[in-house]
Amino acid sequence: MAAYHAVTWEENKLRLIDQRALPGELIYVTYRDYEDVADAIRSMVVRGAPAIGITAAYGMALAAQQSDATDVDALQKDLRNAADVLNAARPTAVNLSWALARIVRRVSDPQIETVDGLKAVVLDEARAIQAFEERSNEQIGQNALSLVPEGAVFVHHCNTGPLATGGIGTALGVIITAHQAGKNVHAYVDETRPRLQGGRLTAWELQQWGVPHTVIADGAAAHVMRTVGVDLCVVGCDRVAANGDTANKIGTYSLALAAHAHDVPFYVVGPTSTIDMAVASGDEIEIESRPASEVSHALSCRITPEGSPVANPAFDITPARYITGIITEQGIAYPPYEESLAALMADAEE
Amino acid sequence: MAAYHAVTWEENKLRLIDQRALPGELIYVTYRDYEDVADAIRSMVVRGAPAIGITAAYGMALAAQQSDATDVDALQKDLRNAADVLNAARPTAVNLSWALARIVRRVSDPQIETVDGLKAVVLDEARAIQAFEERSNEQIGQNALSLVPEGAVFVHHCNTGPLATGGIGTALGVIITAHQAGKNVHAYVDETRPRLQGGRLTAWELQQWGVPHTVIADGAAAHVMRTVGVDLCVVGCDRVAANGDTANKIGTYSLALAAHAHDVPFYVVGPTSTIDMAVASGDEIEIESRPASEVSHALSCRITPEGSPVANPAFDITPARYITGIITEQGIAYPPYEESLAALMADAEE
Repeated sequence: MAAYHAVTWEENKLRLIDQRALPGELIYVTYRDYEDVADAIRSMVVRGAPAIGITAAYGMALAAQQSDATDVDALQKDLRNAADVLNAARPTAVNLSWALARIVRRVSDPQIETVDGLKAVVLDEARAIQAFEERSNEQIGQNALSLVPEGAVFVHHCNTGPLATGGIGTALGVIITAHQAGKNVHAYVDETRPRLQGGRLTAWELQQWGVPHTVIADGAAAHVMRTVGVDLCVVGCDRVAANGDTANKIGTYSLALAAHAHDVPFYVVGPTSTIDMAVASGDEIEIESRPASEVSHALSCRITPEGSPVANPAFDITPARYITGIITEQGIAYPPYEESLAALMADAEE
Repeated sequence: MAAYHAVTWEENKLRLIDQRALPGELIYVTYRDYEDVADAIRSMVVRGAPAIGITAAYGMALAAQQSDATDVDALQKDLRNAADVLNAARPTAVNLSWALARIVRRVSDPQIETVDGLKAVVLDEARAIQAFEERSNEQIGQNALSLVPEGAVFVHHCNTGPLATGGIGTALGVIITAHQAGKNVHAYVDETRPRLQGGRLTAWELQQWGVPHTVIADGAAAHVMRTVGVDLCVVGCDRVAANGDTANKIGTYSLALAAHAHDVPFYVVGPTSTIDMAVASGDEIEIESRPASEVSHALSCRITPEGSPVANPAFDITPARYITGIITEQGIAYPPYEESLAALMADAEE
């Protein structure tokens, strides 16, 4: 592992990398209050669907610490309130609500008899969630290896590395794992406007891991496919519906259409914690609109004239028909996804 | 017309808007030396295929003024040298070489007997080129009107307005003309990384002309098509091959693929000066690679980590099969383009 950790629990506090400062500076920020953690998720100090889930889980551990409840019932109530606050921080990634629901389920166990016991359970479950994501990432990388040819040229969108996941990464983990397996890969890195997670974070991570790469403007990916040749596209996911429709960072859908036109395999990569069987299709997924300033500016540079309206959908939906496969720690799902995802999720729950 | 002019001839000098400073500042720069004009084209003080052609033509008028030749032969030689310098400024837009070739042809007329006569011819031809582009823009806007439904929602890429063309614009001229005809149009404006001509220049121009618009990240266009609904895409062109393949600003091809997937009509818009019948297909068009700093930075803000390689193709090729029609001042060409463009160009030469 390279020497940086997006989300770390340290005794009684949570430590996050402030991902807004990268690649210029590697800054760690310490949190002791779960409401500050909700703010950190909202303002994207931490981002990436699995990393958000882990962070929220440790936010619950902070809420347990902070509570002055003297009996189990009162502490359970405080924790449910904290879960509501954390859950409201961002709407699209399911991992946030998935992690919170896991903790709320554990703390509702009637066999827990003491306040201290309950607090220990919250931290234990948060650690279990982080361990799950780490193991999932590793397994995902292994599961994907057979799909990656020698000398593979990838296109990757947004950031899905250790910063986004807590482990080796999801889609970026596939690339890093293939690199470590000696496959001589090269990654074209979409810069990913408006927040530039590709140009800022993915390029930085690939430097840390020594993976050859080239940063391109988002609009150049189709041109690269037409002129350079690309073996596969890999992207992360914020929520996968039961039919395979996938919500991911804005620009993913456009990339999927370009891949489709060039017969380039297009893989969605994520842990089963990102699959939401309660949602039938992408039409039911809420798409977060983020502040106009993210588009009217790039970092601190003003771009658009004052007064020009801006739309800033943070995610888009890629319909399942454009997705070659969905790579998870439980295996790779192929169409028809209604069946293959249901089978994967049944395995995941065992 | 709104009160700004990208390219103006003033007695013995050329005045350009420094488009790199917009939308923050409207700065005019005056040129008296054709080599400085070549630099202005290279560094994108002025950009946009037709505007580059007009600028180069007036650059020739400056070269004629600058020459200390005392006979016609020597002046013709100076002018051919100046044409070579100007022609090397940027490779992809054909309008540059088209305008220079027009002037070189005129000054080679054996009936011109005096140095002053020859200088007058150069300026006369430069003015004629500007007048041609102005008339073409107007006619293009009229020709396109029947394609634009009431309440049309457009997606537009890069900048193709008065700043880029010298007249009302090509693709943006279609939008402005439809707006002025009372069609209640709305334009989604791709910001167009890396140089942000959409977010900076098109948004500014649509403000000047009072056209309702919304700026989006390039990666959001496909999502807008899927969720909001778009009636037509209009883009400019830097060189159209005889088979209809079109070189235009990087990201155009990606937008065309998104339009194709949503059955959104995709129109290329330009004067016949942009059609290069000497080039059989897009594969023969040279794609300019521009400095990495345009991608590693947005305006003056650094994005990528030091040391991450960048690719910066400035244009891409949209294959003709994704183009619904090519709108010119001579009419609208539809597939098969080999035939329809040949017919248009025959009309243009009459």
